Amino acid sequence: MKALLINGPNLNMLGQREESVYGSTTLNEIEKSCVQHAKSLNIALDCYQSNHEGDIIETIHQAKENYEAILINAGAFTHTSVAIHDALRIFEGKIVEIHMSNTYARESFRHKSFISPVATGILCGFGERTYLLALDALCEERK
Amino acid sequence: MKALLINGPNLNMLGQREESVYGSTTLNEIEKSCVQHAKSLNIALDCYQSNHEGDIIETIHQAKENYEAILINAGAFTHTSVAIHDALRIFEGKIVEIHMSNTYARESFRHKSFISPVATGILCGFGERTYLLALDALCEERK
Amino acid sequence: MKALLINGPNLNMLGQREESVYGSTTLNEIEKSCVQHAKSLNIALDCYQSNHEGDIIETIHQAKENYEAILINAGAFTHTSVAIHDALRIFEGKIVEIHMSNTYARESFRHKSFISPVATGILCGFGERTYLLALDALCEERK
Amino acid sequence: MKALLINGPNLNMLGQREESVYGSTTLNEIEKSCVQHAKSLNIALDCYQSNHEGDIIETIHQAKENYEAILINAGAFTHTSVAIHDALRIFEGKIVEIHMSNTYARESFRHKSFISPVATGILCGFGERTYLLALDALCEERK
Amino acid sequence: MKALLINGPNLNMLGQREESVYGSTTLNEIEKSCVQHAKSLNIALDCYQSNHEGDIIETIHQAKENYEAILINAGAFTHTSVAIHDALRIFEGKIVEIHMSNTYARESFRHKSFISPVATGILCGFGERTYLLALDALCEERK
Amino acid sequence: MKALLINGPNLNMLGQREESVYGSTTLNEIEKSCVQHAKSLNIALDCYQSNHEGDIIETIHQAKENYEAILINAGAFTHTSVAIHDALRIFEGKIVEIHMSNTYARESFRHKSFISPVATGILCGFGERTYLLALDALCEERK
Amino acid sequence: MKALLINGPNLNMLGQREESVYGSTTLNEIEKSCVQHAKSLNIALDCYQSNHEGDIIETIHQAKENYEAILINAGAFTHTSVAIHDALRIFEGKIVEIHMSNTYARESFRHKSFISPVATGILCGFGERTYLLALDALCEERK
Amino acid sequence: MKALLINGPNLNMLGQREESVYGSTTLNEIEKSCVQHAKSLNIALDCYQSNHEGDIIETIHQAKENYEAILINAGAFTHTSVAIHDALRIFEGKIVEIHMSNTYARESFRHKSFISPVATGILCGFGERTYLLALDALCEERK
Amino acid sequence: MKALLINGPNLNMLGQREESVYGSTTLNEIEKSCVQHAKSLNIALDCYQSNHEGDIIETIHQAKENYEAILINAGAFTHTSVAIHDALRIFEGKIVEIHMSNTYARESFRHKSFISPVATGILCGFGERTYLLALDALCEERK
Amino acid sequence: MKALLINGPNLNMLGQREESVYGSTTLNEIEKSCVQHAKSLNIALDCYQSNHEGDIIETIHQAKENYEAILINAGAFTHTSVAIHDALRIFEGKIVEIHMSNTYARESFRHKSFISPVATGILCGFGERTYLLALDALCEERK
Amino acid sequence: MKALLINGPNLNMLGQREESVYGSTTLNEIEKSCVQHAKSLNIALDCYQSNHEGDIIETIHQAKENYEAILINAGAFTHTSVAIHDALRIFEGKIVEIHMSNTYARESFRHKSFISPVATGILCGFGERTYLLALDALCEERK
Amino acid sequence: MKALLINGPNLNMLGQREESVYGSTTLNEIEKSCVQHAKSLNIALDCYQSNHEGDIIETIHQAKENYEAILINAGAFTHTSVAIHDALRIFEGKIVEIHMSNTYARESFRHKSFISPVATGILCGFGERTYLLALDALCEERK
Repeated sequence: MKALLINGPNLNMLGQREESVYGSTTLNEIEKSCVQHAKSLNIALDCYQSNHEGDIIETIHQAKENYEAILINAGAFTHTSVAIHDALRIFEGKIVEIHMSNTYARESFRHKSFISPVATGILCGFGERTYLLALDALCEERK
Repeated sequence: MKALLINGPNLNMLGQREESVYGSTTLNEIEKSCVQHAKSLNIALDCYQSNHEGDIIETIHQAKENYEAILINAGAFTHTSVAIHDALRIFEGKIVEIHMSNTYARESFRHKSFISPVATGILCGFGERTYLLALDALCEERK
Repeated sequence: MKALLINGPNLNMLGQREESVYGSTTLNEIEKSCVQHAKSLNIALDCYQSNHEGDIIETIHQAKENYEAILINAGAFTHTSVAIHDALRIFEGKIVEIHMSNTYARESFRHKSFISPVATGILCGFGERTYLLALDALCEERK
Repeated sequence: MKALLINGPNLNMLGQREESVYGSTTLNEIEKSCVQHAKSLNIALDCYQSNHEGDIIETIHQAKENYEAILINAGAFTHTSVAIHDALRIFEGKIVEIHMSNTYARESFRHKSFISPVATGILCGFGERTYLLALDALCEERK
Repeated sequence: MKALLINGPNLNMLGQREESVYGSTTLNEIEKSCVQHAKSLNIALDCYQSNHEGDIIETIHQAKENYEAILINAGAFTHTSVAIHDALRIFEGKIVEIHMSNTYARESFRHKSFISPVATGILCGFGERTYLLALDALCEERK
Repeated sequence: MKALLINGPNLNMLGQREESVYGSTTLNEIEKSCVQHAKSLNIALDCYQSNHEGDIIETIHQAKENYEAILINAGAFTHTSVAIHDALRIFEGKIVEIHMSNTYARESFRHKSFISPVATGILCGFGERTYLLALDALCEERK
Repeated sequence: MKALLINGPNLNMLGQREESVYGSTTLNEIEKSCVQHAKSLNIALDCYQSNHEGDIIETIHQAKENYEAILINAGAFTHTSVAIHDALRIFEGKIVEIHMSNTYARESFRHKSFISPVATGILCGFGERTYLLALDALCEERK
Repeated sequence: MKALLINGPNLNMLGQREESVYGSTTLNEIEKSCVQHAKSLNIALDCYQSNHEGDIIETIHQAKENYEAILINAGAFTHTSVAIHDALRIFEGKIVEIHMSNTYARESFRHKSFISPVATGILCGFGERTYLLALDALCEERK
Repeated sequence: MKALLINGPNLNMLGQREESVYGSTTLNEIEKSCVQHAKSLNIALDCYQSNHEGDIIETIHQAKENYEAILINAGAFTHTSVAIHDALRIFEGKIVEIHMSNTYARESFRHKSFISPVATGILCGFGERTYLLALDALCEERK
Repeated sequence: MKALLINGPNLNMLGQREESVYGSTTLNEIEKSCVQHAKSLNIALDCYQSNHEGDIIETIHQAKENYEAILINAGAFTHTSVAIHDALRIFEGKIVEIHMSNTYARESFRHKSFISPVATGILCGFGERTYLLALDALCEERK
Repeated sequence: MKALLINGPNLNMLGQREESVYGSTTLNEIEKSCVQHAKSLNIALDCYQSNHEGDIIETIHQAKENYEAILINAGAFTHTSVAIHDALRIFEGKIVEIHMSNTYARESFRHKSFISPVATGILCGFGERTYLLALDALCEERK
Repeated sequence: MKALLINGPNLNMLGQREESVYGSTTLNEIEKSCVQHAKSLNIALDCYQSNHEGDIIETIHQAKENYEAILINAGAFTHTSVAIHDALRIFEGKIVEIHMSNTYARESFRHKSFISPVATGILCGFGERTYLLALDALCEERK
C-alpha cells in the first residue's frame, strides 16, 4: 500500500512553534518516525509539506494516480479551504484527517473543518503521536 | 495502568443498529477485543455501558479513584450532556473521546461535542477499530 | 398488531398538572381508554411511562423485538433528547409522535422536535383525544 | 356541524405530483372520501381548493358565517403566508392543520408554520389518511 | 391632487375582526371618512381594497399614471411581499405607510416591513384615525 | 389637556445637522410651531430637549404628575436606551413616538426601537411636520 | 421542442421601471425577440406574464402537459414563493431561471432564490439579452 | 414550613471538584449546615441529591404533596433540562434557584437557565453560603 | 466594613412604579431598612441613587477609596452599560448584583447583564427583600 | 475584442472529477471549444487555469492592460477569496462569472459568491456549455 | 489648526486602572504630553474628559464652531453610543479614533465600534503613545 | 532595529487601483518613503509584497530569525487567512497591522480581521501615511 502524508501551512515550523501546544519535535523528525512506522506496517509512505494551498491541491491531484491513501494535517487551511475539500473529493482512496492539538478545545474559528466531511476518519489531540496513530488507523482500514 | 471504557446510549444495540453506519459487530465483541488489545498494551481495561446519563456520571465519579484513564463514546449524550462534561472535568486522568462514525459528516446537531473541550484527544470514523486505536493512543500518552 | 404507547417525563402527573393546558383526566384513565380503543381496532396495546430518558431508550430497544409500532409522547425529552432520536432510528416499525397541547403555539424551545424526523406521522393539540386519534392513525397505516 | 376543507397551492396536482411523497390518489378522490367519512360522523363537509392566496383568504372570511370548523392543508402557503394566518385569526370556530407528508422531516424552510399558532390541533405525515383523521379529530372536538 | 388609498388582506373584515385590536368601525366607514376628510384637504381620494397580492401590484402599476400619491396599509403583505415593494419602487409619487395597530409592539414577524424602505413616511398605532392622519401628512407633503 | 414634547440627543442641532436628512428649520422654530399648533388643538404643550439620558428619564418621571401625554423623539436613545423604555412604562398617559426621518430606511441599527413597545402610536419620515401630525394624532386620542 | 417563458410580478412594467437597472425595452418587445430567436433555434415558444402567484402556479401545472421546458423570471416571487418552487418540482422538463439584473449584487433579501434549487441552470445580469441567452442555453440542453 | 433542598448532577462531588471554583466543603457538610440553619428559621428542611434527571423530576412531583418550597441547584441540568422545568411548573410552592459559582461569568452554554423562568428568585456566586442565603430568602418569602 | 448601595435609573420611582412587579415600598424606605440591617451586621452602609450613567460611574470611581464593597441594582443600565462594567472592573472590593424582579423571566433584552461578569455574586427576584439578602451575602463574604 | 478565460482550482481535473456533476469532457477540450466559438464571435480568447489564488490574482492584474473582458470560473475560490474579489474590482472591463454546476442547489457554503458582486452577469448549471453561453453573453455585451 | 482631544468614561482613572492593560501614566500626564506634542506640530490642542455621554455629545456640538479636528477615545461608549455617532456626523472636521488597548483582541462586545464608521482613521493598541501617534496622523491629514 | 514591511494581495496595484479609496501613489513610492522614514528613526526596513498567501507565510517564518518587528498590510487576506494568523503567532517580535482605508467603514466582510488578535497595535484609514505612522508607532514601541 502506498500512502501520502500531507502537512499544511506552518507545520514546517514544528519545534519552533508554540511549544506548549505543539511540542519540540521538528516536522522532519515526525516524518522520519512516520516513514519508519509505516514501513513496519507495510505501507510505503511519502511525505509532503507546503504552505501553499495551490501546491497542496496539485499534490492531491497527482496522488490520485499514485497513492491509495492520504493522511492530511491541513493546518489552518482545514478551516478555510473549500478548494482542498474539492480536491480531496476527487481523490478516490482513503483520507485520514490529523490534528496534533485538540482543535475543538481552541478558538471557535477552529471548530469548523472543511476536511472532515470528505475524510474517512479523524484523529486529533495526541501531539506528534497523532501521526503514528493515523498510520495505524489507515493500516486497519486496509484489512 | 488501569483504564475504563464507557459506552453511552444505544451502543448496547451495536450489531442490531443501522449496519451501514455502525457495522455488524456487537458491543460485547468490541469490548472483548478491547480488553484483549489493552492487555497486550499492558493496560487493565474495564468496560461499562449505560443508556442512563446519571449512571454514566456516577461511573465517572467512581473512576476518579480507580482509573488513570477514561475512553468514552458518549453516543448521543456527546451532543447534549453538560452534566457528563462536568463529571469529566472532575476526573483527573487522561480522557479519550471515541466515535465509530464520522460525526462531522452527519447531521449538524452532531457537530457540537460537550466531550471534546475536556478530552485529551479525539478519534472518529474508523468503525469498531476506533476503539482499538483509542487504546493505542492512550498507551502512547502513558509513555 | 402489537403496539406500545410510551409517555415521557411529567406525563404521570396528568390530571394534577396545569389543567388549562392538559385537562383533568389522569394518565391512568387515558391509558385505559387507549387500551380499550386499541382493542376495538384489533391492536394489542401496552402502555409505559417513565421520567427517565435511559429507561425510555431501553424500552424502545426491547420494543424492536415485540412490537410493530410505537406511539410516543416524549414530553420535554421531545425537544432535548438526541439519544431517544437514535433509539427510535433503531426501531423498525411505525412511529407516531403525540403531543396533547399544540407545542408550536407555545415557547420557542418547544418548536424543535428530535422525534419528528424519525416519526411516520405527528398529531398534536387535541388534548387527551390525541392519543385515540394516534391509534386510529396507526390502524390506518397497518392496512 | 358544518365544516370546510381548504386545500392550498399544488394540492390540485395530487396523484400527478411526486408520488413517493404524496401517493397516487387524486385530490378529487380524497375530497370524496372526506365528504363520505364526514357524513358518517354527522359533519356536513364542503371542499375547496385554490392556488391563490387571496381566494383562500376570502374563503376563510366567508366561512366565518357558514362553518363551525375549518380543516386546512395550506400547502406551501403554510410556510410563508402571514395573511392566511391573519384570516384564520378572524375565524372563530375550530381550525385543524393538515399535512400529508411529515413536513418536519423535510427542508428546513418547511419547519416554520404560520398556521400552527392559530390552529386547534395539527396532524401530519399519514398521507391521504391524514384528512380522515382530521375529521375524526374534529368530530371529537365537537363533543 | 389625486391620491389612492390601498388596503391589503383582511382589512375588508374590519369591524368583524379582533375588535380589541382593530376597533368596530368597518372599512367602508373608514373609507367614507377618508374621502370626506381628503376632500376638505383638497385631495381627490379613491379607495381600493384587495386580498390578492397580484391585484394590489397591478393597482399600483395603474396608479403610476393617475395618482400623485399612494396611502397603503398592506396588512400582512407588509411583512412578506417583495413584489409589492418592487411595484411601489416603480411608482414615482409620495407613498405613506399606514398600520392601525402598533405593529412593533406585536409578534416579531410583524416587525419587518418591506413597505418602509420605499415609503416617504410611516404612521402606526392610532386605530382608524391613522388613516386621517396619513391624509394630513400627505397634504403637508404636497405643500 | 397638558402634553410634554421631549427631544433627545443631537436634536438641539437641527438646522445645523445633515440638512438633506433633517431640513434647515431649527429645533426652536419647530417647538414654537408645535406650541402654537397645540394651542389651536386646545393642548397646553411644554417643550424639553436634552442630550442626557438621565435628564430625559427624570423629566419623564416628573411628567407623571403634570402631563396627560408625552410626545417623544428620543433620537439615538431610541435604539439603545432600556432606561427610557422603563421610565415611559411608569408614565400612565398617552405616548407618541416621533422620528423626522424614516428610520426604517436607514442603517440597520436604527431599525430597533425601545420606545415603540411602550408607545401608543408612531409617526416617522415627514420631517419637521411629523411633530405637528403627532399633535393631531394625540388630539384625536383624547376624544 | 415546445417551451414556455414565464415572467413574474412587475415585469409587465419593463420599459417604465427603474431604467438604470432594467433598460428601456418593454416586455412585449422582449417577448417578440424571444419568440423570433426561439424560432431560429427550432423552439416553439409561448410567453406568459402574471403578477399573480396563483396564476403562475396554475400555468406551470398546465405546462406539464404541453411543454418540454420552462424559462422563468419569477421577479420578486423568486425570493418568497415556496408555492412556485413546489409547482416547478411537479414539472418534469427543463427549467431555466432568468434575472435581468445581477440579483446577487443587490439587497440581501434578493440573494435567496426558491427557484434555483429546482432549476437546471441560472442566468442573470445581462439585461434583456439574458432571455435570448436562456433560449440558447435551453437549445443546447436539448441536444 | 417544610422545604426540600435538591442538588443536581456532580454536586455529590463537592469538596473533590475543582476546588478553586467550588471550595473544599463537601455536600454532606453543606446539607448539615442548611438543616441547622433552616431549623433556626423554623423551616423543616429535607435534602436530596441525584445525578439522575428522572429521579429529580419524580422528587419534584412528590414534593408537590409534602413541601411548601423547593431550593434547587440543578447543576448542569440547569442549562439543558426542559423536563425539570416542566416538573417545577407543576409544583405550586416557592422555588429558589441556587448556583455556588457565578454561572454568568463562565462559558456561554451556562448562561441559559431553564430553571430561572419558573423560579421565584435566584442566588448565585456566593459559594457554599449561597445555600444559607437561599434559606434566608425563602424564610422572608414566607412572611 | 464600609459598603455602598447604588441604585440605577427609575429605581427612585419605586412605590410609584408597576406595583405588581416592584411592590409598594419606596426607595427611601428600602434604603432605611438596608442601613438599619447593615448596622446590625456591623456594616456602615451609604446609599446612592442616580438616573445618570455618568454619575454612577463617578460614584464607583470614588468608592474605590472609601468602600470595601458595592451593592448595585443598576436597573436598565444592567443590560446596556459597558461603561459601568468598566468602572466596576476598576473597583477592587466585593460587588453584589441585585435585581428586585426575576429579570430572567422577563423580556429577552433583560437576560444579558454587563454587571454579572464583574460581580462576586448575584441575587434576584425576592422583591425589596433582595436588598437585605444582599447585605447578608456581603456580610458572609467578609468573614 | 480580446478576452481571457480564467479557470480556478480543481478545474484542471475536469473529466476525471465527479463525472455525474461535471461530465467527462476535459478542460483542454472545453478551452478548445471556447477558443473556436470565440473566434466565430470575433473574440480573441486566451485561456488560463490555476490552482493558486496568487497566480489568479496576478493574471487578473495583467489582464487590465491586455483584455477587455474576463470570463471566470473561480471554482472553490468563488466562495472564499476576498483577494480575487479585490483584484476583479481593479479590472475595468466586463466580467462574466461561470459555474458548470448549479451551485445554489448544492451545499450551503457554495451559496455565497465573492465574484458575483463584481460580475456583470452570472451563468451556472449548464455543464460545459455554460462556457460557450458565457461567450455569447459577452459577445452581446460588446454590441 | 485647532484640535480637541476627548476622552470618555473611566479614562480619568488611568494610572489607577488595570495597569497591565492601561499602564501607570495618569490621564493628566497624557494630556500634558499631548498638548506639548501638538504644539510642536503647530496644533493648538484642548483636552476634555467626561464620564457623561450627554456632556461628550454637547462638547462635540460646540467643537463644530471652534475646532478643525477631534481626537476621541470614547472608552466604553465606543461600543454602545449611537448618540455620539450622530453627534460626530454633525461635526465637519477630521475625526481620529483612539484606543490604548487593542480592542479587537479583547471581549467580543468590544469589537463593534459606533465611532469607526464616522472616523477618518483609527489607531489602537500602542498604549499612551497612541495619543501622540494620533496627533501625528492628524498633522499629516492637515497637509 | 530591523523591521520588515509586508504588503499582501493587490497592493502591488496601488496607484492603479480605485484611486478614490487608495490614492495615486504607487507601492514602490510608498516603500521608498517608508525605508527613508525608517532610516531617520534608526530602523533598517526591508519591504516585501506578495499576492501569494503561502509566500507571505514563509516570509513571516524567515522573519523570525532576522527581524524584531513586522509591519503588515495583509490586504484581503486580513479577513480570510487563519494561516497567516498562525504564522504571526510563531513570530516573536512586534507586529503592527496597517490598512490604508478605514476597513470598519466598508463592507461587513471587511470588519473581521484575523491579524488583529495577534497584533501589538493597529492603524487604519490614513491612506499612504498610515505606513509612516506605523513606523513611528513601532519606533516608540522599541523605546
